[in-house]
Amino acid sequence: MQFQCKGIDYFIYIEKNEKVMSTLTQFCKDQNIKNAKISGIGAVKETGIGAYDTEKKEYFQNHFDDVWELVSYEGNVTLKDGEPFVHAHVILSNHEMKTVGGHLFETTVAAVGEFFLRKFSGDAYRELNEDIGLPCICLENKLESLL
Amino acid sequence: MQFQCKGIDYFIYIEKNEKVMSTLTQFCKDQNIKNAKISGIGAVKETGIGAYDTEKKEYFQNHFDDVWELVSYEGNVTLKDGEPFVHAHVILSNHEMKTVGGHLFETTVAAVGEFFLRKFSGDAYRELNEDIGLPCICLENKLESLL
Amino acid sequence: MQFQCKGIDYFIYIEKNEKVMSTLTQFCKDQNIKNAKISGIGAVKETGIGAYDTEKKEYFQNHFDDVWELVSYEGNVTLKDGEPFVHAHVILSNHEMKTVGGHLFETTVAAVGEFFLRKFSGDAYRELNEDIGLPCICLENKLESLL
Repeated sequence: MQFQCKGIDYFIYIEKNEKVMSTLTQFCKDQNIKNAKISGIGAVKETGIGAYDTEKKEYFQNHFDDVWELVSYEGNVTLKDGEPFVHAHVILSNHEMKTVGGHLFETTVAAVGEFFLRKFSGDAYRELNEDIGLPCICLENKLESLL
Repeated sequence: MQFQCKGIDYFIYIEKNEKVMSTLTQFCKDQNIKNAKISGIGAVKETGIGAYDTEKKEYFQNHFDDVWELVSYEGNVTLKDGEPFVHAHVILSNHEMKTVGGHLFETTVAAVGEFFLRKFSGDAYRELNEDIGLPCICLENKLESLL
Repeated sequence: MQFQCKGIDYFIYIEKNEKVMSTLTQFCKDQNIKNAKISGIGAVKETGIGAYDTEKKEYFQNHFDDVWELVSYEGNVTLKDGEPFVHAHVILSNHEMKTVGGHLFETTVAAVGEFFLRKFSGDAYRELNEDIGLPCICLENKLESLL
């Protein structure tokens, strides 16, 4: 991987055959990034994406082994059990321009992986919400429904 | 909802059963945010999305009542009639990883709603453009086509 | 086109019948923007999108002449042969909410084109990578695989 940092903005290039989620997670640990917004594009392979079943309270996963364009990657970094945790959703497109999307488990760069990470100097963390069944984000200011 | 603010960046968590567009719009009013970029991911339900018919000059709308992953939310805040107005486009994915997309009317968080808002300290506003039939953005610097 | 600049953030409105890629590229040249992140939404027509064939090492292209919602535009600006170069991936949706996506060659605004550009004050550039067959991003800090 390669990166360049200017202030709180990081330009990140994940190289061919490197794993996206593991690389970004390790990068946040190494750089002491606790909270961030990440977005990017590229071309990927060996992709596991899924969705959360809100009734069964579990994720299921689908695999796409061949090369797809990564047409959208949008994610965030929060602390989970004290460590940086990356949560991202992606959209992929194939050679017929067909798209699939979902929660990203892992994917490997097939050609290029071009990302921007913007550090957020907060301390947002995740804590299990039993009603939802997922570790959910906890932020400083909690407001009753605004409506 | 919950939020944390650092400088001009807001990390926003919209909670289960809260409406996304109404919550973000009310938040901008309460925080005096006139212009911004918003992006996010999550899982949503009771979603109304549509498209603009450029010939009939009207939006039509489709409804997706069940739970979909919110795989991309990209929007902006401008002033319309002096009040903050959120314009957003989304892409949703279902349990078969199929995607649908469009202009977002409203959607409700089904599990989590994780957003970043970046304040833009300008005064961009919308004014009806009769040729297009929509309130269009007006910015400080207007240039002839650059090409 | 219209724009407003606050610090390193640009709010950009590309108007009906203006080309998106050419306009953004020319804007970067005029404003001396070498590196940036760009994202946006809108409604477009006469769109050329494609994908990279990693075996043949070439892009192929598909055309969508009619009006589609631009539901996601995510791109970056780097230097290629010393000039600003925009690389972007998009997702479009039609009146049935169907989505298509890919690498964006060019598209023309059909109604509105609403973009944010965030300048990155670096000097990232692209250089041909013969293994991949594409001009790939080169950044200041090069790390061995982090895993």
